[in-house]
Amino acid sequence: MSHNSFGQLFRFTTWGESHGPALGVVIDGCPSGLAISEAMIQEKLDRRKPGQSKYTTQRREPDQVKILSGTFEDERTDGLRTTGTPISLMIENTDQRSKDYGDIRDKFRPGHADFTYEQKYGIRDYRGGGRSSARETAARVAAGAVAQLVVPDIKIRASLVQVGPHKINYDRFDWDQVDQNPFFCADPVAAAEWATYLDGIRKEGSSVGAVIEVVAENVPVGLGAPVYGKLDQDLASAMMSINAVKAVEIGAGFDAAELTGIENADEMRAGEGAPYFKSNKAGGILGGISNGDPVVVRFAVKPTSSILVPRETVTKANENTDIITKGRHDPCVGIRAVPVGEAMMALVLADHFLRHRGQTGREGGVGF
Amino acid sequence: MSHNSFGQLFRFTTWGESHGPALGVVIDGCPSGLAISEAMIQEKLDRRKPGQSKYTTQRREPDQVKILSGTFEDERTDGLRTTGTPISLMIENTDQRSKDYGDIRDKFRPGHADFTYEQKYGIRDYRGGGRSSARETAARVAAGAVAQLVVPDIKIRASLVQVGPHKINYDRFDWDQVDQNPFFCADPVAAAEWATYLDGIRKEGSSVGAVIEVVAENVPVGLGAPVYGKLDQDLASAMMSINAVKAVEIGAGFDAAELTGIENADEMRAGEGAPYFKSNKAGGILGGISNGDPVVVRFAVKPTSSILVPRETVTKANENTDIITKGRHDPCVGIRAVPVGEAMMALVLADHFLRHRGQTGREGGVGF
Amino acid sequence: MSHNSFGQLFRFTTWGESHGPALGVVIDGCPSGLAISEAMIQEKLDRRKPGQSKYTTQRREPDQVKILSGTFEDERTDGLRTTGTPISLMIENTDQRSKDYGDIRDKFRPGHADFTYEQKYGIRDYRGGGRSSARETAARVAAGAVAQLVVPDIKIRASLVQVGPHKINYDRFDWDQVDQNPFFCADPVAAAEWATYLDGIRKEGSSVGAVIEVVAENVPVGLGAPVYGKLDQDLASAMMSINAVKAVEIGAGFDAAELTGIENADEMRAGEGAPYFKSNKAGGILGGISNGDPVVVRFAVKPTSSILVPRETVTKANENTDIITKGRHDPCVGIRAVPVGEAMMALVLADHFLRHRGQTGREGGVGF
Amino acid sequence: MSHNSFGQLFRFTTWGESHGPALGVVIDGCPSGLAISEAMIQEKLDRRKPGQSKYTTQRREPDQVKILSGTFEDERTDGLRTTGTPISLMIENTDQRSKDYGDIRDKFRPGHADFTYEQKYGIRDYRGGGRSSARETAARVAAGAVAQLVVPDIKIRASLVQVGPHKINYDRFDWDQVDQNPFFCADPVAAAEWATYLDGIRKEGSSVGAVIEVVAENVPVGLGAPVYGKLDQDLASAMMSINAVKAVEIGAGFDAAELTGIENADEMRAGEGAPYFKSNKAGGILGGISNGDPVVVRFAVKPTSSILVPRETVTKANENTDIITKGRHDPCVGIRAVPVGEAMMALVLADHFLRHRGQTGREGGVGF
Repeated sequence: MSHNSFGQLFRFTTWGESHGPALGVVIDGCPSGLAISEAMIQEKLDRRKPGQSKYTTQRREPDQVKILSGTFEDERTDGLRTTGTPISLMIENTDQRSKDYGDIRDKFRPGHADFTYEQKYGIRDYRGGGRSSARETAARVAAGAVAQLVVPDIKIRASLVQVGPHKINYDRFDWDQVDQNPFFCADPVAAAEWATYLDGIRKEGSSVGAVIEVVAENVPVGLGAPVYGKLDQDLASAMMSINAVKAVEIGAGFDAAELTGIENADEMRAGEGAPYFKSNKAGGILGGISNGDPVVVRFAVKPTSSILVPRETVTKANENTDIITKGRHDPCVGIRAVPVGEAMMALVLADHFLRHRGQTGREGGVGF
Repeated sequence: MSHNSFGQLFRFTTWGESHGPALGVVIDGCPSGLAISEAMIQEKLDRRKPGQSKYTTQRREPDQVKILSGTFEDERTDGLRTTGTPISLMIENTDQRSKDYGDIRDKFRPGHADFTYEQKYGIRDYRGGGRSSARETAARVAAGAVAQLVVPDIKIRASLVQVGPHKINYDRFDWDQVDQNPFFCADPVAAAEWATYLDGIRKEGSSVGAVIEVVAENVPVGLGAPVYGKLDQDLASAMMSINAVKAVEIGAGFDAAELTGIENADEMRAGEGAPYFKSNKAGGILGGISNGDPVVVRFAVKPTSSILVPRETVTKANENTDIITKGRHDPCVGIRAVPVGEAMMALVLADHFLRHRGQTGREGGVGF
Repeated sequence: MSHNSFGQLFRFTTWGESHGPALGVVIDGCPSGLAISEAMIQEKLDRRKPGQSKYTTQRREPDQVKILSGTFEDERTDGLRTTGTPISLMIENTDQRSKDYGDIRDKFRPGHADFTYEQKYGIRDYRGGGRSSARETAARVAAGAVAQLVVPDIKIRASLVQVGPHKINYDRFDWDQVDQNPFFCADPVAAAEWATYLDGIRKEGSSVGAVIEVVAENVPVGLGAPVYGKLDQDLASAMMSINAVKAVEIGAGFDAAELTGIENADEMRAGEGAPYFKSNKAGGILGGISNGDPVVVRFAVKPTSSILVPRETVTKANENTDIITKGRHDPCVGIRAVPVGEAMMALVLADHFLRHRGQTGREGGVGF
Repeated sequence: MSHNSFGQLFRFTTWGESHGPALGVVIDGCPSGLAISEAMIQEKLDRRKPGQSKYTTQRREPDQVKILSGTFEDERTDGLRTTGTPISLMIENTDQRSKDYGDIRDKFRPGHADFTYEQKYGIRDYRGGGRSSARETAARVAAGAVAQLVVPDIKIRASLVQVGPHKINYDRFDWDQVDQNPFFCADPVAAAEWATYLDGIRKEGSSVGAVIEVVAENVPVGLGAPVYGKLDQDLASAMMSINAVKAVEIGAGFDAAELTGIENADEMRAGEGAPYFKSNKAGGILGGISNGDPVVVRFAVKPTSSILVPRETVTKANENTDIITKGRHDPCVGIRAVPVGEAMMALVLADHFLRHRGQTGREGGVGF
């Protein structure tokens, strides 16, 4: 069952609420013997951390990770190593600003999970959205850092490629730019335009959606288990599980609907020792199985639902009212979704790497 | 593990290849006491059946379903009823045209799973694509018919909404039109245009992609299990698992990226006994849980990879060659994906209905 | 979820009722490239087949297996091979003797699942016990034959070691005797005694319980996943799932309760290249993980519940009555449980072999 | 997958090592709205806590539980309530006595998981047995306390019924005695005898095995999912997963092997509104489904492997040596397994309660 767990052989379970004492993740099935450290995980968490620019929430959380189990070190292990047992990671919440929750306690914020949690469970931790808060994604990023250790040769990177109606220009795409601007954007010109655009959005007390592209390079051929453990299927599931995501596509994605079979064919040519594909409309996946080309996933994040402009809603007592959501919100949650997308990619690939190795006895590979 | 199974409490496992003796599905976890018949399942299968118009493959398969287990009838059960034990459904393959498979045996067809199956498994049933053939979707449709019995009040319908670059006009959207044309299209004008367009595509020996929209009405509030059993997550997984699907979106989907928080808010108003939403940008799902509004999913299908125009490829021996894929192929596989999308929607909702009932003791419902 | 499935990476799902048209199993996750044949599976089924001696049911079922999917053969595969896709096996029921079911339709047979199925599902296929019939074990045996292909070096054998109060003498234990008597008994003297004893039991119209011992030799070190995927845990689950089984033990089992720590210690000694154990109280499993010694499991089967001596029971209308269960029943179902126990051992080991390989990248091995 | 998780709808995952900073459990799928408190869980933990008599380890661990997530309280919830989200419980380790681990670092203790962990993972946290330590069972007991909230009407109790060769006299069985002696023994006379017996065992520096009986009363009819989610199967799995357990039986258990069908039949009689069983050889389970009678499980625990008498073993370098295991060990680990057995019973029943409710829409019940 998958309530709060994801993955099969490499499986993680997250827990925690926005304003509880802590949040965390238990990673189960990580191979033993991998060099690991809190610093290694922290580095990934720091990229997702709030309050790093004026374009993300001003909540001040150090998001300091602690490893509670699953690792061991003595003079013979050459540093801290995974042991094959569950790795428990915890992040304490420190900046749960004391405040009056009256408004969101009794009203349903449009676009939030308030109404559905209330209906499903009959009780709701309304403080900061409780379990439905995007703070849960810190646990994903921490888990993703561990997943990356399982597939060290796979290079996973992501870029914000659209903010509101403004898309990047792929001709300017440069991975080295991603950490040079507050948007994780591979196109520096677009990043500069977004800065101006988002200043306006913030002044209006509004927010805006975004699209993220995640690319995994050097993925071995053979990952994915047809028919209901397809690699693209699990990637779609992984990305759609991120807060506020409304759409996922692989390779050409929705554009594939407009193409003819002639245009969409990724033709092959004989290469040195192995064939290669002349194009990558498939996004690196054929029949649910990786083909050795870069795995390319894009997902759309809706605009932050918490805005300062009043919206119509109802109270728990089914009475009409308005609501504005004060607080420290991201004007574009898509920005901080970039490292989360990278983490989910790592988590899916690590799981399928182990599954493939289990079923076939091979570690996959490019070519034949 | 999910190799060839999907769902949790309502779980199905499919088996079979395109040119094997039969294909089938085992449905596990179906509640007992439901009235069932082969005719009921056959009706759904007949909608997906090949050879019903010149726009789909001319393969002649009656797709006759047999119930092999999980049902019982005596004078006290008032007809055939499910018993709560596994329901095994089988469909025999009858039109596996005898032919020379030499070309696809030794060459990888671009866009097909030939290369990846060969690489992953080291052996490949190349006859008609084997396990990667869309014939597997017959098993999904059969299972979907049973799933619908679990959630009889939920109305699930789908329409083709785009063929190549040609989209429907939503102002003309009329569900009653769907079964009046060979495209399962709710817009009769678009259907007529597509007929002409696809004639051209067929003459070119090419194919084209499509977009399908699936809508479920009267979905109870509360279905979905955050954080990794979200309803939208499982729908994304379900739709992405269908052959040739490259993209999935819920509600506003990718368009949500372009909206502001002001525009995207589904405002609420007090209603009779329960509040209602003024709009449905969310596609009926908030925080991964159904909110009582129609659940709206769209997915993109790439153009059929099997085309009559030669494409460059390589042989198993890594030598350059060309390939054309003769045979009886759908110029637009998106058409027959319409009933498959409906089936997957039913399968996901039935599973979440049982899961919700298990965890909460309630059957969900609109309002509070 | 596990309603009718077992295993994780090597997973099988059974379906079918005693008096339905057929029963079967879908095996999911079997590695590709393994040589397979219907004859190979049939050989195992023939050992379990009813009607082979006067000590088992006289129902005449050829139990002829058909492979419906998951295999492929051409001139390059050197015979039929698994392809990595689901293997569907079907066995048609042929000897569902037409008869009046009135008695068991309306009365609950003591010791049978009649009462609980009726209560749980509200409907019950009473013909021959329906799904609760031991005919389901034919599907296990067929699946077990495939599982054995995954771990060809592991030698799995079983013997009946107790019938009623009569135990074998382990000093006479000889595996070669197992197929020389109708009891799968490694002690020929005990087998002869049982023949006389069971003749008496049959004349009384009664039945008797039994104990089966299953031994797997050459099991690689390292199979098992602590803490909730322990090898002994999964073996206990596997054996307890067999019809009529009421107890399972590993190694010294219940006797371990009577031992001191001094007596129970399996001391170790340095061996050639690897250490060895001086004794095997552990039954080949330490901390849930195989240690390279033979894995030894024993399980107890209760006496056949269907007997010719009247027993008190009630009707569906909660009225007192008596019942005798006519029909063709095994006086000791434990006999035919022997090949079933072997099959379950193979299924558990094959699954853990793949899981271990997935998580560690190694295939296990004896020694270090 | 089940590495460190157990259960389906009510699922828990444990983590932590004997000498790490903490251990814990994440409970996923607990229904919302249940009154909960740390004190409630602590009460159960205190029963299992070490150092409560001279018959258990003298390690001093307060085993203080903290609830980190999944609960909420405000003025309307009437105390702390579960919210339906994951409940994370943590217990900090405080008495990891600083010491030289040299001996167990380099030698394999007979009967322990040292050898198999080393072989499987290539690395081993040898401090106190690491993950294989029975300290993990604290997490089970904490989880079991939460499970009991899901099935409040089911009464679960356990008694030690055998220590070494000394069994209780069932004629003296009195549940009220269980908490009146340091052995959780329902027979006060046996308890007194065991005290003397164990004093001798301790003086010898040895240890001894035990048998525990767990009884659940007022279990609703209908829990259990044939064929591979049988209630007895999951109980066998649950109990066998406890450290040092080597055998499990249900109802008559191994004794059933010696009975005839006449003796073993639990005859039924018409009762007020519902039938009843005249005996309970079945241990409350028929065909894998609860029948309304008490569910009775017994399991055998081997003697503590850590003893003060030298035993032969080998070093990691495959050299012969001896080992004695100093430390603070239980002379009979079976004693502290009693509350663990209760917890596992609660965990299995809670899970099956939710599964049954999901699949059938009913909560089960006695009678029809």
